[in-house]
Amino acid sequence: MAAIALVQGASRGLGFEFCRNILRNKDPGAVIATCRNPADATELMNLVGQHPGKITVLKLDVNREDDVKDAAEHVKRVFGKVDLMINSSAMLHPSGKGETSLRDVSAQGIISTLTTNTVGPLIMAKYFAPLLQKGSGAFGLQPPERAKHHAGIIVNITAKVGSIGDNGLGGWYSYRMSKAALNMATRNLSIELGRSRPRVVCVSIHPGTVNTDLSRPYHSNVPKDKLFSPGYSVHCLMGIIESLNIDKTGKAYNWNGSELPW
Amino acid sequence: MAAIALVQGASRGLGFEFCRNILRNKDPGAVIATCRNPADATELMNLVGQHPGKITVLKLDVNREDDVKDAAEHVKRVFGKVDLMINSSAMLHPSGKGETSLRDVSAQGIISTLTTNTVGPLIMAKYFAPLLQKGSGAFGLQPPERAKHHAGIIVNITAKVGSIGDNGLGGWYSYRMSKAALNMATRNLSIELGRSRPRVVCVSIHPGTVNTDLSRPYHSNVPKDKLFSPGYSVHCLMGIIESLNIDKTGKAYNWNGSELPW
Ligand SMILES: NC(=O)c1ccc[n+]([C@@H]2O[C@H](COP(=O)([O-])OP(=O)(O)OC[C@H]3O[C@@H](n4cnc5c(N)ncnc54)[C@H](OP(=O)(O)O)[C@@H]3O)[C@@H](O)[C@H]2O)c1
Ligand SMILES: NC(=O)c1ccc[n+]([C@@H]2O[C@H](COP(=O)([O-])OP(=O)(O)OC[C@H]3O[C@@H](n4cnc5c(N)ncnc54)[C@H](OP(=O)(O)O)[C@@H]3O)[C@@H](O)[C@H]2O)c1
Repeated sequence: MAAIALVQGASRGLGFEFCRNILRNKDPGAVIATCRNPADATELMNLVGQHPGKITVLKLDVNREDDVKDAAEHVKRVFGKVDLMINSSAMLHPSGKGETSLRDVSAQGIISTLTTNTVGPLIMAKYFAPLLQKGSGAFGLQPPERAKHHAGIIVNITAKVGSIGDNGLGGWYSYRMSKAALNMATRNLSIELGRSRPRVVCVSIHPGTVNTDLSRPYHSNVPKDKLFSPGYSVHCLMGIIESLNIDKTGKAYNWNGSELPW
Repeated sequence: MAAIALVQGASRGLGFEFCRNILRNKDPGAVIATCRNPADATELMNLVGQHPGKITVLKLDVNREDDVKDAAEHVKRVFGKVDLMINSSAMLHPSGKGETSLRDVSAQGIISTLTTNTVGPLIMAKYFAPLLQKGSGAFGLQPPERAKHHAGIIVNITAKVGSIGDNGLGGWYSYRMSKAALNMATRNLSIELGRSRPRVVCVSIHPGTVNTDLSRPYHSNVPKDKLFSPGYSVHCLMGIIESLNIDKTGKAYNWNGSELPW
């Protein structure tokens, strides 16, 4: 049976690159790519042309619970399972830039950021958990003991700046708070879905600083060798994902596989 | 000059008890008590009668940025400073009970909880920071070095279940996520407001499991000696607050003064 990966937030940046990487490297594999506006996602649509029959694009705005529910019903009907779900969509702030100080903080800005970056991935988990529990464990590295096998994997893309303990600089209130809360969601999901069989692994992963639209306003501050291409970042992240098992669930990992503090 | 404490969420529970404790023990001191519906806050109104001229009640729904702004303008005009601000208001979930599993999770439930428990305290900090920077350092323990003196203190009441590292049980998605994100706000505030003078200290404190309306649905699960009275909890918390200084900023503390993991 083909490995089924669902990538949420696949129109651009890392989400798009995950689709490309999995289609190239996972065999037999198929990708479900979700995004808000498929018609505008030109690169993604080109990818569909290059891999006929192996990629399904679904319209899904992670802020709309109904979209998530409908997508889950469609995937259930057509695929019956998901082996890997990656929540990639996020924003720094509705303005496109993180707050540099309290002056820039607004209730509406924080709420929008939390809704997309934190609530979205958790609502995805709510509706897709039953499908991940039907996964065939096609991603990750199953340990020898059968009792420890996992069915599916959830990856929430977090950020190092979402680590409270690591926060020495401040700023970026909305984004930092959204990723800290997302890490708590990861932890809670790992407990609920790791406890009973079939097990689902859930982790947060930081992709490094990556050359995408999200980080664009800050590229000039980043040393060249610290600004990863999406291809390199996703290559590293897929390496981590393919090494996951139930003993590694409930944690936050850096792009190089080291553990991040909460 | 009198010590000015502002307690946000003062109608009931710990918030109300903070008002009572400070009025009894801090001399010369005055309390600004904010709540959504002063007319319904009978105990608080009785307290006003018992301490004439020492307590000001302001109507403030922490979900309404305009309320917060108006209150800050009023406090600026009348008091000109705040020495201690305690953000106490919170809810477990709009239903009154934390989610026991993903089945209970809804986007609307999480967003409401985050708005009250997380966004509210940060918006309070935004509008009251300038007044806390005008504080006379009347709470906490100033170190000998003048350069380290603080003007004001912000206390965000957090919860042990908001610690990601300590989370071994799962459940209570909205509440846990709201407090993890609040802890990130605390950390960010401690950096922004601790960096330049006049300094403001910002910490998160867990009050223990306390006999209030919030915890009522779970009282029967709590051993009697682990369920604190609001009086006892606030007594412990005021002890911690009166020992704070700039070296202790940016952390989360348990009711007994020990540090909580993020
Ligand atoms: N780039 C970095 O340096 C960096 C560093 C640390 C963490 N991250 C994390 O990596 C992940 C991917 O970010 P990126 O760098 O690839 O950013 P990006 O290129 O800006 O892409 C963001 C993606 O999120 C989607 N999105 C935004 N709001 C959405 C919504 N409501 N519903 C569905 N999709 C939505 C966008 O879709 P549209 O095309 O429809 O707008 C887009 O596909 C994010 O979680 C980000 O926080 C990135
Ligand atoms: N009790 C515990 O065991 C426990 C344990 C850990 C942490 N905590 C934390 O301790 C703090 C105080 O809780 P508590 O136990 O005293 O709870 P409580 O007795 O239920 O009181 C909650 C307070 O929050 C106020 N509030 C709710 N929404 C509000 C809004 N939108 N605007 C303004 N005020 C609002 C309520 O005001 P109304 O009267 O208008 O509803 C009430 O004064 C909370 O941060 C809670 O998370 C409590």
